[in-house]
Amino acid sequence: FVNGKFCKDPKDVTEKDFFSSGLDIPGDTSGRVGSNVTAVNIEKIPGLNTLGISFARIDFAPYGLNPPHTHPRATEIIVVVEGTLYVGFVTSNLANGDNRLITKALKPGDVFVFPTGLIHFQFNVGKTKALAFAGLSSQNPGVITIANAVFGSDPPINPDVLAKAFQLDKKVVDYLQKAF
Amino acid sequence: FVNGKFCKDPKDVTEKDFFSSGLDIPGDTSGRVGSNVTAVNIEKIPGLNTLGISFARIDFAPYGLNPPHTHPRATEIIVVVEGTLYVGFVTSNLANGDNRLITKALKPGDVFVFPTGLIHFQFNVGKTKALAFAGLSSQNPGVITIANAVFGSDPPINPDVLAKAFQLDKKVVDYLQKAF
Amino acid sequence: FVNGKFCKDPKDVTEKDFFSSGLDIPGDTSGRVGSNVTAVNIEKIPGLNTLGISFARIDFAPYGLNPPHTHPRATEIIVVVEGTLYVGFVTSNLANGDNRLITKALKPGDVFVFPTGLIHFQFNVGKTKALAFAGLSSQNPGVITIANAVFGSDPPINPDVLAKAFQLDKKVVDYLQKAF
Amino acid sequence: FVNGKFCKDPKDVTEKDFFSSGLDIPGDTSGRVGSNVTAVNIEKIPGLNTLGISFARIDFAPYGLNPPHTHPRATEIIVVVEGTLYVGFVTSNLANGDNRLITKALKPGDVFVFPTGLIHFQFNVGKTKALAFAGLSSQNPGVITIANAVFGSDPPINPDVLAKAFQLDKKVVDYLQKAF
Amino acid sequence: FVNGKFCKDPKDVTEKDFFSSGLDIPGDTSGRVGSNVTAVNIEKIPGLNTLGISFARIDFAPYGLNPPHTHPRATEIIVVVEGTLYVGFVTSNLANGDNRLITKALKPGDVFVFPTGLIHFQFNVGKTKALAFAGLSSQNPGVITIANAVFGSDPPINPDVLAKAFQLDKKVVDYLQKAF
Amino acid sequence: FVNGKFCKDPKDVTEKDFFSSGLDIPGDTSGRVGSNVTAVNIEKIPGLNTLGISFARIDFAPYGLNPPHTHPRATEIIVVVEGTLYVGFVTSNLANGDNRLITKALKPGDVFVFPTGLIHFQFNVGKTKALAFAGLSSQNPGVITIANAVFGSDPPINPDVLAKAFQLDKKVVDYLQKAF
Repeated sequence: FVNGKFCKDPKDVTEKDFFSSGLDIPGDTSGRVGSNVTAVNIEKIPGLNTLGISFARIDFAPYGLNPPHTHPRATEIIVVVEGTLYVGFVTSNLANGDNRLITKALKPGDVFVFPTGLIHFQFNVGKTKALAFAGLSSQNPGVITIANAVFGSDPPINPDVLAKAFQLDKKVVDYLQKAF
Repeated sequence: FVNGKFCKDPKDVTEKDFFSSGLDIPGDTSGRVGSNVTAVNIEKIPGLNTLGISFARIDFAPYGLNPPHTHPRATEIIVVVEGTLYVGFVTSNLANGDNRLITKALKPGDVFVFPTGLIHFQFNVGKTKALAFAGLSSQNPGVITIANAVFGSDPPINPDVLAKAFQLDKKVVDYLQKAF
Repeated sequence: FVNGKFCKDPKDVTEKDFFSSGLDIPGDTSGRVGSNVTAVNIEKIPGLNTLGISFARIDFAPYGLNPPHTHPRATEIIVVVEGTLYVGFVTSNLANGDNRLITKALKPGDVFVFPTGLIHFQFNVGKTKALAFAGLSSQNPGVITIANAVFGSDPPINPDVLAKAFQLDKKVVDYLQKAF
Repeated sequence: FVNGKFCKDPKDVTEKDFFSSGLDIPGDTSGRVGSNVTAVNIEKIPGLNTLGISFARIDFAPYGLNPPHTHPRATEIIVVVEGTLYVGFVTSNLANGDNRLITKALKPGDVFVFPTGLIHFQFNVGKTKALAFAGLSSQNPGVITIANAVFGSDPPINPDVLAKAFQLDKKVVDYLQKAF
Repeated sequence: FVNGKFCKDPKDVTEKDFFSSGLDIPGDTSGRVGSNVTAVNIEKIPGLNTLGISFARIDFAPYGLNPPHTHPRATEIIVVVEGTLYVGFVTSNLANGDNRLITKALKPGDVFVFPTGLIHFQFNVGKTKALAFAGLSSQNPGVITIANAVFGSDPPINPDVLAKAFQLDKKVVDYLQKAF
Repeated sequence: FVNGKFCKDPKDVTEKDFFSSGLDIPGDTSGRVGSNVTAVNIEKIPGLNTLGISFARIDFAPYGLNPPHTHPRATEIIVVVEGTLYVGFVTSNLANGDNRLITKALKPGDVFVFPTGLIHFQFNVGKTKALAFAGLSSQNPGVITIANAVFGSDPPINPDVLAKAFQLDKKVVDYLQKAF
């Protein structure tokens, strides 16, 4: 099934294997962070297998945040359709251990790239809702929301690890692990 | 410069290397086919190098057509934002030489995939303009508009080749080569 | 089965999994275009899985044409064994929309490359039959004969699409769709 | 320089292009987290270009921690040589948003894999120092130490982003941004 | 220059960048082993860069041998055009250390595959000369003739290494190192 | 199962899928060549599938030899932990047919790279045992011990092939084929 062979016999493939719907419907942004990602990947479109791309709609409430996260197997490219987004990513450690933050305020029609595996975020800094579309360079990009993965994993990470890593009091770690 | 190394020294990279603007501006669809593709690829965003993705905005006048074409190095995934598009692609020859046409009428929010290298088209079948966004699985996908490449190449393809291939009278080939 | 693992248990692999025969037999070139491609790919040699290569024999009647086509997943390299072939490919659109035609007349012993996904053709410009062998950079390269895919797909492409794309009268489109 | 071509003329290559020294010397673990990674990648061995691998030595003081981090372009495989390490990684979000923590206590001779791009850590849970070696599946794997990238980037991430993402009081964010 | 970008500005590319000649001329098989490989790779066709394929003509004198060798970066697929070849390859060590020999006698029109990196040979077992063409899955496949690399390297491998590895008397190793 | 999808449902993955043990135990070096490789690859760690890396421990008796071999699908990077190793690899044939030997004497802490598919060896030139760890750039690198593959394949290679390739008397070939 590698390199251009479909999983199904090509004679049995139909348009349904390459189709998905619903990206006209805003995601629910009433949650705590005020953003919602509607992903269209190989789970929804089986014909994407081996094709190396997927898509997403990202909705933001006013002041909504798509919090710092990574895609372990994909670069992301977004276009802002509505609203104003303050976006950024942090580069890998250089030899001296620094992490550079690259940011940009985006308005409708602006396009920005988040290179594969780097921590990035999108923040709606306007009073109105915002909307972006994104292409991702994998049919199965994965997403790791940093705060959830670190403080909300199942089971939880050993609090000693987090207290030491984040220079936090264990009470704060405990509070965070309960919150996520 | 392969596998995650930027062309520039990482310390000199700025947000401009990952940014492009203008996808809020409808492309000019007043041409013959009535469609316009605004591509955002490595020519516009140098930071896309090695990252394997690019983006595009596609505008359609009423009854506008993005004519049959291929991307020699990319799969395309589109979302319709406005209007109704009749889209399709033709599969590779199977053993018996048939080419299957896979089509779908898309309305806003619908997503469709055109696998790498296959001939595909998008046709606005509505009375109003249409708009789609597309992700492509290469920073440099290329585009081959079939009619232009076949009948409008520079210099022209030997008319004997085209007459034989397309079962056309050489006068028709001559007419087409002048048209494109 | 990725990256060097055979589909079969390595202990059960035999020489038959890496073997095919029959490339000494000229293909039937009595058809309309006067050429015939005998492909040896993963359909014939299962051991090619993941190995990224296949092979073909291409026969040409006098004035036979291997009509404009693409391989969506492979670059092709050919050697002419007999006869004289006029070959060419058309590059991707550049920024200004031009498509360059790169051509060469080949005699026995000449080698030519058709880059992945680009439209190319081989035309026997001599009075005698011609023969070429080809290597392709995929175990499953696929082939899209442009005229057949455009005018001979099953089901047919909407004639409005083709009339507009090729600047053809719908009667001519109708004629072509019946011919292919 | 892709696919097996060295950057230097092969005739000028010497053993120095494939060599590095110093992995017998324990790294300095006197810092806050009590661990030290000595990486041997393309910066140290230019001959690694295009070869897709690098190596590292990881030293741990008693109770030393290699804090949660990712390699954006590599899977890591480690062997413990000395001491006892409690290691783990967190999987990507599944459809329902959970992040699974996969952990294991490792003793000398144990091998563990951290898949590409996933957040992982190694914690010396013993009273004595510990030592591990690691192979990484890229000549330039990169490393993103989560706490440093999130709270210690240069310039700092907007505190509103971090307060909202981590459910932290802005005072705590301010404290953390000063600490890192 | 990765993923479909030519090294030259596409506007300056000519047919010469995709062309080579001379594969109609039999190689000189008067040497000791009685075979000759004429390779057409990126050294001869610069346009092959990133395209992942190359080609070769292999001539055999009666009883000529293309001795055991590997291509470190390519799978090879051959077609026999003239003569009878006894060909084979040896699989990787399995868990129990065995190496399986897969062989086949090939006549004109037969096709055989030698998977990437495996030791293989082609032996003309007929009284007449033989000819084969080969496709290789890299623009720069490399070739390692085992006997030459082992006994004829420059400078020579330490004779103790070879005596021990091949269970040969050092006098025989010395003899072989002078022969190659 | 390509590009980051586990073979198992991600919800059923456990730490056992990413774990192996036993690399603290010296391999048995009492055999003829005096070395032993303990490999940890996809056979031992199923979670390595698609991740492109594996690991090994290499033990050497005094004057033990890891004899000339190749990994058909991987580059190897080693670190010496104990003892002194004389290591080397032979480059591909250049245009003029020479094979360059690149060697280095390694002491503890030294790192060396053996590029994919090239013949290489490691020889303990000290009076004491030696130990190295190695990373390999494939989950299934394969190993071809040259002497065993050439003289010890099952079934044996035609002695005429080996006599001609290695310029050996057939009696010597017969002796070697019985020895391996």
